[in-house]
Amino acid sequence: MKLIRFGAEGHEKPGVIINDTWFDVSHLVADYNEAFFAGGALAELKTAVDKGGLTQVDKSTRLGAPMARPSKLVCVGLNYKDHAKETNAAIPAEPILFFKSTTAIVGPNDDLIIPKNSKKTDWEVELALVIGKKASYVSEEEALNHVAGYVLHNDYSEREFQIERNGQWVKGKSCDTFAPLGPFIATTDEIEDVHNLKLWLTVNGKKVQDGSTANLIFNIPFLVSYISQFMTLLPGDVITTGTPAGVGLGMKPEPWYLNPGDVVELGIDGLGSSKQTAKAYQKI
Amino acid sequence: MKLIRFGAEGHEKPGVIINDTWFDVSHLVADYNEAFFAGGALAELKTAVDKGGLTQVDKSTRLGAPMARPSKLVCVGLNYKDHAKETNAAIPAEPILFFKSTTAIVGPNDDLIIPKNSKKTDWEVELALVIGKKASYVSEEEALNHVAGYVLHNDYSEREFQIERNGQWVKGKSCDTFAPLGPFIATTDEIEDVHNLKLWLTVNGKKVQDGSTANLIFNIPFLVSYISQFMTLLPGDVITTGTPAGVGLGMKPEPWYLNPGDVVELGIDGLGSSKQTAKAYQKI
Repeated sequence: MKLIRFGAEGHEKPGVIINDTWFDVSHLVADYNEAFFAGGALAELKTAVDKGGLTQVDKSTRLGAPMARPSKLVCVGLNYKDHAKETNAAIPAEPILFFKSTTAIVGPNDDLIIPKNSKKTDWEVELALVIGKKASYVSEEEALNHVAGYVLHNDYSEREFQIERNGQWVKGKSCDTFAPLGPFIATTDEIEDVHNLKLWLTVNGKKVQDGSTANLIFNIPFLVSYISQFMTLLPGDVITTGTPAGVGLGMKPEPWYLNPGDVVELGIDGLGSSKQTAKAYQKI
Repeated sequence: MKLIRFGAEGHEKPGVIINDTWFDVSHLVADYNEAFFAGGALAELKTAVDKGGLTQVDKSTRLGAPMARPSKLVCVGLNYKDHAKETNAAIPAEPILFFKSTTAIVGPNDDLIIPKNSKKTDWEVELALVIGKKASYVSEEEALNHVAGYVLHNDYSEREFQIERNGQWVKGKSCDTFAPLGPFIATTDEIEDVHNLKLWLTVNGKKVQDGSTANLIFNIPFLVSYISQFMTLLPGDVITTGTPAGVGLGMKPEPWYLNPGDVVELGIDGLGSSKQTAKAYQKI
């Protein structure tokens, strides 16, 4: 299945995509939240959806992130060799983990707000996954049983905040709108080989990232198992798995970053595409 | 007011402490969560509590953390000069921020579970605060209007995971039971001068930390304002402000860490005390 959430910000309803058409399932499911993923409601939803008779949703409707606010958004850093190289970082011996604030989460096509005082707002196309079952000290063999699905993510990063403002990356990763997720969660059965998906990103139509999940240094089962040694993953939690080469920070001869008006588009095989337009911060 | 949550893990109810007696307020308040802090329910609760007629709660009842799971637990590192010195770290020019997973949160007197494969589980008594009003780009002058109250915290830290396992502190900060909070939230009016509170911690009765919030490098208004430049703080979010000298990592001539059976007690003037007994991890 492909799970979407549609409607105005803060008022999203759950839906599904069937053959490129959007349907409302809010009469079947309260939300795609921790209780939904924990309770086996995914299988029940599939049965109900297969019966048909759903109400269609107009595709001009705004999409929100396809999951309710998770308890955490765990990120893996430098998980593609080419990206580690372009940022002059060593290939990590074990995964680098950091968090983004969940207040950064927005819909896939919402505007990117360039933060106040930002000069170095950068992009990162990433494959993210959604936890389907609580995971604590799980083995690599068990790990995929704890994954509900996959989702497209743009891990926006303010490089000055991240690197030049005194330690710990979270500072440059957590600004509002820095985590567009979606358009949809593809349940694991929809993706034949998660380790062989092309992922790409363009800025104003120019392709800057063009990679494949075949080049992940640490693969999905390893990551889920690894992270679960350090913290408990809850149903609905999101893990984002790192970005391939082609970010602004790595540009030669000089890094370059986003300005108001720039348009960022990105996609992953089987997970659709998203599009964000950069706007300057304005006090509301 | 002093806010508590009492009852079995996952089933805590809201209560208040009045003159050292515990009272149930679950008929007045659903929980001390984002909606509660956002909605001005604190003032309504005070009015209702002042009318009296509340049901008493037996003080042998377990206490949970005094707030529902926050959207995030933001931590400030190296915010006391003496602690920076003992860990051979430079005095930070601006605050170091990191996150703990909210799955680490437990009640004030729950057991500390030493994680699997841990050799360096360490303690850190800290003053934490609870956000009462959404904060984004707030000034230092406005900052205290966004704080609902203060709470005692032990920022347990696995030093090998934090420092020797490849970057980013979150890895050593997020294990289950690593964030005991409570016994209670003291609303801001209860604390005369938050920048002049003694805080202390003992291990098996031996005093190892003995500091004062007078020695904070960055004070509370500065921290709230600073953090709000990088992320939006939501009502109910917790910020913990760093620890004074006396952690295991800083012990001379050799660092020493917690073992199963060790008893950790800690307290802050006006915020009560808590007590955790270390246990070895056992698969449930």
